Amino acid sequence: MLTQTQLKAAQARTAEYFAKAGIVLSQEETESIEIAEFGLEELEKQGLELITYINTDRYCAKELVLFPGQTCPEHKHPPIGSDPGKMETFRCRSGKVYLYVEGDPAESPKAQVPAGSEPYYTVFHEIELNPGEQYTIQPNTLHWFQAGAEGAIVSEFSSTSRDEYDIFTDPRIKRIPEVAAD
Amino acid sequence: MLTQTQLKAAQARTAEYFAKAGIVLSQEETESIEIAEFGLEELEKQGLELITYINTDRYCAKELVLFPGQTCPEHKHPPIGSDPGKMETFRCRSGKVYLYVEGDPAESPKAQVPAGSEPYYTVFHEIELNPGEQYTIQPNTLHWFQAGAEGAIVSEFSSTSRDEYDIFTDPRIKRIPEVAAD
Repeated sequence: MLTQTQLKAAQARTAEYFAKAGIVLSQEETESIEIAEFGLEELEKQGLELITYINTDRYCAKELVLFPGQTCPEHKHPPIGSDPGKMETFRCRSGKVYLYVEGDPAESPKAQVPAGSEPYYTVFHEIELNPGEQYTIQPNTLHWFQAGAEGAIVSEFSSTSRDEYDIFTDPRIKRIPEVAAD
Repeated sequence: MLTQTQLKAAQARTAEYFAKAGIVLSQEETESIEIAEFGLEELEKQGLELITYINTDRYCAKELVLFPGQTCPEHKHPPIGSDPGKMETFRCRSGKVYLYVEGDPAESPKAQVPAGSEPYYTVFHEIELNPGEQYTIQPNTLHWFQAGAEGAIVSEFSSTSRDEYDIFTDPRIKRIPEVAAD
């Protein structure tokens, strides 16, 4: 898990991405930027930084940051009761994102699967998102994504978010972050 | 209704707002920016410019532009069948917005009701939104909003949008835009 020092450093770096893109956060939001390192202890390779603007029982909106080459690991949002599972639209705001979903695999994927985690990346239908481009991921569909060399900012518009139910392909992953004392 | 020339001019002006704020649109989106003049033929006073990024049966996301002092007229989103009505979160991205909803009225509202339309503005509980600030409007609740002197860009995150069911206080208003030949 992250130490407080690592957490604060990652939050400050994320805040710089937002500032550079002209995305304004409140002071409270800036101090509560979520750093998801998924329990893998290699944030630079596999991780995600985010702000949840709003999450109601009807819809959700988040702003995601990926550092250069950083990967959000493969997962899906399963049905929960009468909910068919989270549906989400990714809109690239800056940088470049390679998004992989179920379907015909790319012959030469442009992203690199994080070394040591190869067994846990299984879908390779490739969608490249540049600023102003977006893609909607259907519920209960495996997906993962990686930023290009300059990192990326992605707006996520979706149905209700229940991160604790996400199913990751990598059994080592814990979605809910923990932070250690320094 | 707007002429083609008026429509194109308003679209170009809106595109400039997005560009200045670093919000990138696709070519197709830029060409389809929606100009809502509400059938009132006074776009500068009462109107709204917008892009709908995504509108599914579960959620919706739009980007709204208001020119300086421009007002989106008072309306509400009523229940439709089992849907309790559209719920929406307004997040100010740039500029300033004065939002009015049902509740204790402001003694001296900072916005000015558009001259000649006074009878159609009835709620005055004031929320001022600056960049990084947001407010969630409950379903079936009257609301209207006006930009400050520099205009504004507002991200709207919401449940499904069905604009054709919106109920405006002003009976002269037609929500669905028409465009005339020049």
